[in-house]
Amino acid sequence: MTKRRIILDCDPGQDDAVAILLALASPEEIDLLGITTVAGNVPLTLTESNARRICELAGRPDIKVFAGAKRPLIRDLVTAEWIHGRTGIDGANLPDPTMPLQDRHAVDFIIETCLASEDNSITLCPIGPMTNLALAFMKEPDIIPKIQEIVCMGGAVKEFGNTTPAAEFNIYVDPHAAAKVLDTGIKFTMMPLDVTHKALVTPERLQRMKDMNSPVGDVCGGMLDYFNRFDMTRYGFDGGPLHDPCVIAYLIKPGIFSGRQVSLDIETGSELTMGQTLADWWDIQEDKEKNAFICDDLDSDAFFDLLQERLSRLK
Amino acid sequence: MTKRRIILDCDPGQDDAVAILLALASPEEIDLLGITTVAGNVPLTLTESNARRICELAGRPDIKVFAGAKRPLIRDLVTAEWIHGRTGIDGANLPDPTMPLQDRHAVDFIIETCLASEDNSITLCPIGPMTNLALAFMKEPDIIPKIQEIVCMGGAVKEFGNTTPAAEFNIYVDPHAAAKVLDTGIKFTMMPLDVTHKALVTPERLQRMKDMNSPVGDVCGGMLDYFNRFDMTRYGFDGGPLHDPCVIAYLIKPGIFSGRQVSLDIETGSELTMGQTLADWWDIQEDKEKNAFICDDLDSDAFFDLLQERLSRLK
Amino acid sequence: MTKRRIILDCDPGQDDAVAILLALASPEEIDLLGITTVAGNVPLTLTESNARRICELAGRPDIKVFAGAKRPLIRDLVTAEWIHGRTGIDGANLPDPTMPLQDRHAVDFIIETCLASEDNSITLCPIGPMTNLALAFMKEPDIIPKIQEIVCMGGAVKEFGNTTPAAEFNIYVDPHAAAKVLDTGIKFTMMPLDVTHKALVTPERLQRMKDMNSPVGDVCGGMLDYFNRFDMTRYGFDGGPLHDPCVIAYLIKPGIFSGRQVSLDIETGSELTMGQTLADWWDIQEDKEKNAFICDDLDSDAFFDLLQERLSRLK
Amino acid sequence: MTKRRIILDCDPGQDDAVAILLALASPEEIDLLGITTVAGNVPLTLTESNARRICELAGRPDIKVFAGAKRPLIRDLVTAEWIHGRTGIDGANLPDPTMPLQDRHAVDFIIETCLASEDNSITLCPIGPMTNLALAFMKEPDIIPKIQEIVCMGGAVKEFGNTTPAAEFNIYVDPHAAAKVLDTGIKFTMMPLDVTHKALVTPERLQRMKDMNSPVGDVCGGMLDYFNRFDMTRYGFDGGPLHDPCVIAYLIKPGIFSGRQVSLDIETGSELTMGQTLADWWDIQEDKEKNAFICDDLDSDAFFDLLQERLSRLK
Repeated sequence: MTKRRIILDCDPGQDDAVAILLALASPEEIDLLGITTVAGNVPLTLTESNARRICELAGRPDIKVFAGAKRPLIRDLVTAEWIHGRTGIDGANLPDPTMPLQDRHAVDFIIETCLASEDNSITLCPIGPMTNLALAFMKEPDIIPKIQEIVCMGGAVKEFGNTTPAAEFNIYVDPHAAAKVLDTGIKFTMMPLDVTHKALVTPERLQRMKDMNSPVGDVCGGMLDYFNRFDMTRYGFDGGPLHDPCVIAYLIKPGIFSGRQVSLDIETGSELTMGQTLADWWDIQEDKEKNAFICDDLDSDAFFDLLQERLSRLK
Repeated sequence: MTKRRIILDCDPGQDDAVAILLALASPEEIDLLGITTVAGNVPLTLTESNARRICELAGRPDIKVFAGAKRPLIRDLVTAEWIHGRTGIDGANLPDPTMPLQDRHAVDFIIETCLASEDNSITLCPIGPMTNLALAFMKEPDIIPKIQEIVCMGGAVKEFGNTTPAAEFNIYVDPHAAAKVLDTGIKFTMMPLDVTHKALVTPERLQRMKDMNSPVGDVCGGMLDYFNRFDMTRYGFDGGPLHDPCVIAYLIKPGIFSGRQVSLDIETGSELTMGQTLADWWDIQEDKEKNAFICDDLDSDAFFDLLQERLSRLK
Repeated sequence: MTKRRIILDCDPGQDDAVAILLALASPEEIDLLGITTVAGNVPLTLTESNARRICELAGRPDIKVFAGAKRPLIRDLVTAEWIHGRTGIDGANLPDPTMPLQDRHAVDFIIETCLASEDNSITLCPIGPMTNLALAFMKEPDIIPKIQEIVCMGGAVKEFGNTTPAAEFNIYVDPHAAAKVLDTGIKFTMMPLDVTHKALVTPERLQRMKDMNSPVGDVCGGMLDYFNRFDMTRYGFDGGPLHDPCVIAYLIKPGIFSGRQVSLDIETGSELTMGQTLADWWDIQEDKEKNAFICDDLDSDAFFDLLQERLSRLK
Repeated sequence: MTKRRIILDCDPGQDDAVAILLALASPEEIDLLGITTVAGNVPLTLTESNARRICELAGRPDIKVFAGAKRPLIRDLVTAEWIHGRTGIDGANLPDPTMPLQDRHAVDFIIETCLASEDNSITLCPIGPMTNLALAFMKEPDIIPKIQEIVCMGGAVKEFGNTTPAAEFNIYVDPHAAAKVLDTGIKFTMMPLDVTHKALVTPERLQRMKDMNSPVGDVCGGMLDYFNRFDMTRYGFDGGPLHDPCVIAYLIKPGIFSGRQVSLDIETGSELTMGQTLADWWDIQEDKEKNAFICDDLDSDAFFDLLQERLSRLK
């Protein structure tokens, strides 16, 4: 497998933070061109500073971090402090970052990076609302052929949503953006709740992380301790679902995931089902193009082994 | 348990036919006041004559059968001959009925029966599109207090739909009617695909039916042989799902079903998700009234044992 | 011109009351088969009793008056006491009626009358929300060929609405019913605000009515005095618009009206424009069927002369 | 009146071209900071080159012209060659421009210009679809306080639309953009068809333009000759409506326009009425904020006198 040149578009978020760490710890497979941030789990000023905090924790103040959209395209911003805490990465206890935020707007970084690249050479990894990507496509549609694949965390296909009964948070916050991105026709791979709800941070897995006895292990342990509480209480899960790192793990070891190429639509026309990711899992509508690969299962032990192995590289 | 006074509103349909037979074979629990028919699986002229065919097969030409709505409230009629065959009960091979169709309109039978009854004394059992019920509520809202419960077959909650990815057939055909019925606030119990997909007519169960060596057994065997083909082919199921009899079985032995009281909405505002039955299974929207009891599981062996025991009473 | 056999479907309402009187005073042109009433300007119990009050005022206790729908098809009932007063015909000061309300439901009267008639022989005149008509078409679509024409008061084409900026009251109250009726394909003639806002009860016209010195003149004078206040205040009109009698006047003297055959749609899919009657006045969408004749002007002097002449026949 | 610092956002278009010329000819009142272009009447490559052609015609190759969005935010691009001709300015017969297109994206020019300005100091003048403005607000909402007023050409309030019965072209092409711009809460002034249909290029007015005997007069004469044909044929108008220059004329001489401060909504939720500009002209919904000043009349002689006087300054 050739090394992927990725732009990680995120809204840290504890699980975003772990995704950043996993990407930074995996230079064999991943060339992280930059981190773009967006309003989502918490407002933009927090997501961009959190991204820098995590880069510094990983000893990588050289990573370029960009701030992007402050609000969704059309709808009002909804945030999720009730899950992530006031800072977005409650439990991490990291100091203010000293590495700089890049001057350029995230949208322009995406556009310029794509335009300067060969066709089919960039992988976009949105793990928050897709506002930045949608704005980039709106501002400069000529970037479309440059992109090899979009691998996103978002949606709920056979599962119920976690924000409304119909919709998962990332898509719900900016459904118009998600629909715009899907509509580009770029190869589209999705990690919905169906798969991330099988990537649970059980007490044993959490303990293993803490036992790394490294700053990264301590921070991850603290964050996921905090993050676990919500889903264990609401759903009676054995642990919190580690959503966003699934995207990075898929780039490293796609074989531990399974899914199906289907026809996917995103609801933007009804308040009741707003942001629903409606997949034709059983191919009822045979004429519709199968425009998305949707993962619905993973080998969770292999996933956490990979995560543990990679995070332990970071000191 | 007191005997239920029911009106069975149906669009036979092989599984509707079995539901009628199960009701007729269960006089201890069920007082069948009348059968009302509606356009659905096949057009109205077929559903009403099929209902009479089945009553005659069961030796009950005294049952009152009424014809109702020829079309859904708002949308164009969609039928399902690809599943049920041209007659609606392909595989049954029954002669034309000789018992009469009642003169009165189904909607008026429902209204007059309710108005002549005590409060909380009627159970409405729609196992097709709910057009007749909706029209009755529109024409005479004063029937609402007369109704004890509505127990319907319809919807798909955790399952995908069988007509679109979002919607099950009965609700899809007349979503406005279903929304109207739900909106009455009457106690509402639903048998969606989630439960009926667990009531599969496996080859063994089908054989047991055929082994009854009775006209009813032969007809049911023939119909379900035909009906099984679709779902076994599309979904790789072990047999076809016996949707509609679940409603009658629930009235007889509710203990073999399990479910959850939740907040339910029916989508009528978006073509993409039209007819979706959206349940707040995890109680995300805590303020919304829990307006429906949705079954999602059954003891399938107990269900088929009950069915076998009752159908064998009919000669 | 042959005499029209009409069913007048109304929600009196001062202007409905004048429409009833005009119909009763015009036996040469109009054979009034019955009056059906609906919830609209005020609730059903008031509209049906007001219809009877007006028949009695005209010395016609023989007229059959039926009660119909208590609520719109899909939406909640909105009434307009702020215009019509608490009784619906404030200003009339009429005693309770003694003539009976017919037993049958308005919807069934419409259906049975149509089914018993020749093709193309009935004119339906809805001057309130079209709930009753829609229910009749839903319950018995076989009545469609019996109907010669539907002549309604409702909508706003070049004018703004009077209930929302987009919608006129009658259509707004039950847009789904109006869309259903229009969708039958029956010849459809509409008197929107565009024409009725030109039928203003100026002080001179009001005085002429009062000067009839008859019970009918006194009641009409009292009602229209009351009714005028709203529009004269809000819009600065020279008098209130006498909406509903335009329908009856059109049946008597179509030549005093002018209009255009156009493509008409009724909005039911957006809350913002709910109930808008959108006409393609300039034939932009050349492929669409011109499905409605919409009046937008009248000879108002001729209209009031006709009204005066006819009402003066009633003692 | 202080001189206005404006950004003219356009999609030339013959009437856009005249608007540019009027702005360039009016340095006392207007400081034209730059011209941004968007896909609309014709695709972007034509609108940006047409803008440069017109600047060169006016002897102003120093004006900065920027290219912006190639497509509307959400919907597919609709163009209007049937009105404007293949080039967008058919009838002008201008050579290819030699002045350069600016490197920066129109959206970034808008953002950077605003951010570098004092609060309340910029007037944005969109006379095409508002995609560029919406993208600017999405990408950098901090520009909002910098803007003094938005004066746009678009919409149809009491008039029917010219693209669908409900919608005018500019708003129809990108209704989501228009709604986004309106939603900023910036002072919003609109020139809908209601006013522009009163700014007709009658044969006399056209002749006066041609009689200027200048290159500008010849080009305007040629363009408007072409442009007139559509509306004179379809609507039987006495001339084509000179839409876009109304915006510039309003900045120069607001006193020749009249209108009303009302509550305005833009429909984005229904295909039937998509892009409708729904104004509460009669203040029915008293609680809603009056968020737009909508012109519905002008002194057309004064308008054409102004236009003639200014255009004659250009040689």
